Amino acid sequence: MAVYTDISDDELAAFLREYDIGAPLSFKGIAEGVENSNFLLETDRGRFFLTIYERRVRAADLPFFLGFMQHLAQHGFPSATPIPNRQGRLIGELRGKPAAIVSFLTGLSVRRPTPAHCREAGRGLAWLHEAGHGFTGTRANDLGHQAWIGLFEPLRGAAEALKPGLAATVEGDLLRVLEDWPDGLPDGVIHADYFPDNVFFRAEAFAGAIDFYFAANDQLAYDIGIALNAWCFEPDGSFNVTAARAFVAGYESRRRLSPAERATLPLLAHGAALRFFLTRLHDWGATPAGALVRPKDPLEYERKLAVHRAGIHLFDEI
Amino acid sequence: MAVYTDISDDELAAFLREYDIGAPLSFKGIAEGVENSNFLLETDRGRFFLTIYERRVRAADLPFFLGFMQHLAQHGFPSATPIPNRQGRLIGELRGKPAAIVSFLTGLSVRRPTPAHCREAGRGLAWLHEAGHGFTGTRANDLGHQAWIGLFEPLRGAAEALKPGLAATVEGDLLRVLEDWPDGLPDGVIHADYFPDNVFFRAEAFAGAIDFYFAANDQLAYDIGIALNAWCFEPDGSFNVTAARAFVAGYESRRRLSPAERATLPLLAHGAALRFFLTRLHDWGATPAGALVRPKDPLEYERKLAVHRAGIHLFDEI
Repeated sequence: MAVYTDISDDELAAFLREYDIGAPLSFKGIAEGVENSNFLLETDRGRFFLTIYERRVRAADLPFFLGFMQHLAQHGFPSATPIPNRQGRLIGELRGKPAAIVSFLTGLSVRRPTPAHCREAGRGLAWLHEAGHGFTGTRANDLGHQAWIGLFEPLRGAAEALKPGLAATVEGDLLRVLEDWPDGLPDGVIHADYFPDNVFFRAEAFAGAIDFYFAANDQLAYDIGIALNAWCFEPDGSFNVTAARAFVAGYESRRRLSPAERATLPLLAHGAALRFFLTRLHDWGATPAGALVRPKDPLEYERKLAVHRAGIHLFDEI
Repeated sequence: MAVYTDISDDELAAFLREYDIGAPLSFKGIAEGVENSNFLLETDRGRFFLTIYERRVRAADLPFFLGFMQHLAQHGFPSATPIPNRQGRLIGELRGKPAAIVSFLTGLSVRRPTPAHCREAGRGLAWLHEAGHGFTGTRANDLGHQAWIGLFEPLRGAAEALKPGLAATVEGDLLRVLEDWPDGLPDGVIHADYFPDNVFFRAEAFAGAIDFYFAANDQLAYDIGIALNAWCFEPDGSFNVTAARAFVAGYESRRRLSPAERATLPLLAHGAALRFFLTRLHDWGATPAGALVRPKDPLEYERKLAVHRAGIHLFDEI
C-alpha cells in the first residue's frame, strides 16, 4: 500500500505526449499494489490507470503480462486493456522505469466473500481461462510445483522457527503432493493470484479481474486450487465446503471440468497452499522489522495446510 | 502519503446507506494527505472524495472547515463541496472516526510554478477570499502570530542543533516582525496553507483549491504572505520577484489591496516564513527516525527567513 515513485506534472505531461489519450485533468497516486506505483489518471478522453513497475516485476516479463491483458480484453474478458503509445508499444518509460497505461476498470473487491460471490468468482475464472485460449505468449510458472522443493530448502530453519516440527511436516506435505501431482490436465495461461482483492464485482456480479503479474502457463485447474484457498476459508481457519462447491459450480457454468480435473482439485489446492505458505514464509523472513509494507502472515497458510493434510471433501460423488 | 484506515466493502456499503449518492462502483485509497485517509469513490451518480479524519485534525474544528467549504462552493468558488447525509449532516462516522464525503474536484497541481501559474494562483486566492466573505463561522488562528513566541520557546535547543546561533537569529526575527505586525487590515477566513500542492490548474488556468484544514480567521493579506513563500522561491533558495509580482497582480485582478496591505506584504511574508519554520522544526524533532511520513525540512524555511531578513523588494513604487 504505497506509492514508490512520485511523478511531477511536467514528467506526466512529457510521458503523455507519447500517447494519444488527451490532456490530463486529474492524477492521483493510488494506495494499491505493494510492488508497483499506481496512479489514477483522468484525461478529457477518459480514465486510465498508470503503472510504474518497481522492483519485483521483471521487465522481461512485461510483454507477456501486458500482451495477455490485451488478448483478454480483445476476447471480451473484463480486464484493464493496455493502451498502446503512438509507436504502438504497450510499455513506455517513466523516470527510467518501465511504465504502462491501461484502461480503468470499475468494480469493488469484497473482503468477506459469500458463497454467491464465490460462484461469481468461479464463473469469472473460467471466463478468464476461456478468453486466454489462443494467446501465443508463454511464460514458465517460476512459482509452479517444480519450484517448491527449491523454495523450501533454504526455509527449513524459518519453518522450524515459526513452529517446532513444521519443517518436517511441510516436507511431508511436499513429498506427498509432488508424488501425485497430475500431468496432462488441460493447460493454458493461469492468473495464479486470483485472490478476492484482485477480483471486482458490480452489484454482486463478477465485473473483472486485475493484477496479472503472476500469470504463467500451467494446468488450468491449478488456478482453481489457488482460488479455493483464497476464497473458501473462514476467518476461523475452517474450510467452507459450500463456498468451494459454489466456486466450482460457477466455474463449470462456463467451462466443464474433466473427471481428472475434478478428482485432482483437493491435491491441487493442497499444492497451492504449499506455494503460498513458502513464498509468505520467504517474504516474512526477508522483510526488515519496521518496513513500510507488512508481509502477509505465513501462519494463515500453515493452518490451510493442516486442513488439506486432513483432507478436504469437495463433491458428494467422490 | 499514506492511507491510515483501510475500509472494507461492507463498511463502505453501511456508511453509504446514510447518503443519497447512489451505489458504489469503485473505491480506491489515495496516496494524498499525510494527516487523513482519503479515498476516491465512484458511484452511479458521480465521483466523490471520502475523507476519514485521523489524528491531527480536531473533530471540534470540522464543522468550521466543512461549513467553510460548503459556503465557498455555494458562492461559486471551485472547491470540493461537502455532501450532506440523509440527516443533513456534513460529518458522519466510519470506524469510530469522523468522516465526510465531498464532491470530486478535477485539476492538476504544479510542482514548479511559473510566473503565469503564480498570477493564476493569486487570482484564485483573491477569489477564495471574496467567496468566503459573509461566512458566519469563526475559528481563531491557533498558528497565527500570537502563537509564535509560544511555539518558539521550547524549540530554542532544536534551532541551535540545526545551526549554531540560529536560536538568537530567529528570536531577533520574531521580535522585529511582531513589533511591526499590523492590526486592522481587512480580515476574514484565510486558507492558511495555500501551497502549490493545494491548488489545481486546468490548461494553465486556476481550477480550484483543496485542503482547508488550516483555515482560520485572520488578516487576508497574511494569506498572501504565506503564498509568496510557497510559490515564489526558486529551488536554489532565491526569491523570484517576477513570480511574486505576478501573484500579487493576479490577486489584485479580483481584489484590490489597500496601500497598508501592499506596504505590509514583505513583513507578513517574513512572519509567514517564521510560522512554517517553527512548525517544521517542531515536526522534525517530534518525528521518530524511520517513520512512515518524512517531515518537511525546516532548513528550507530557514533559508527563506534569511531572504526576508535581508529584505524583499516587491513593488517599484515602494
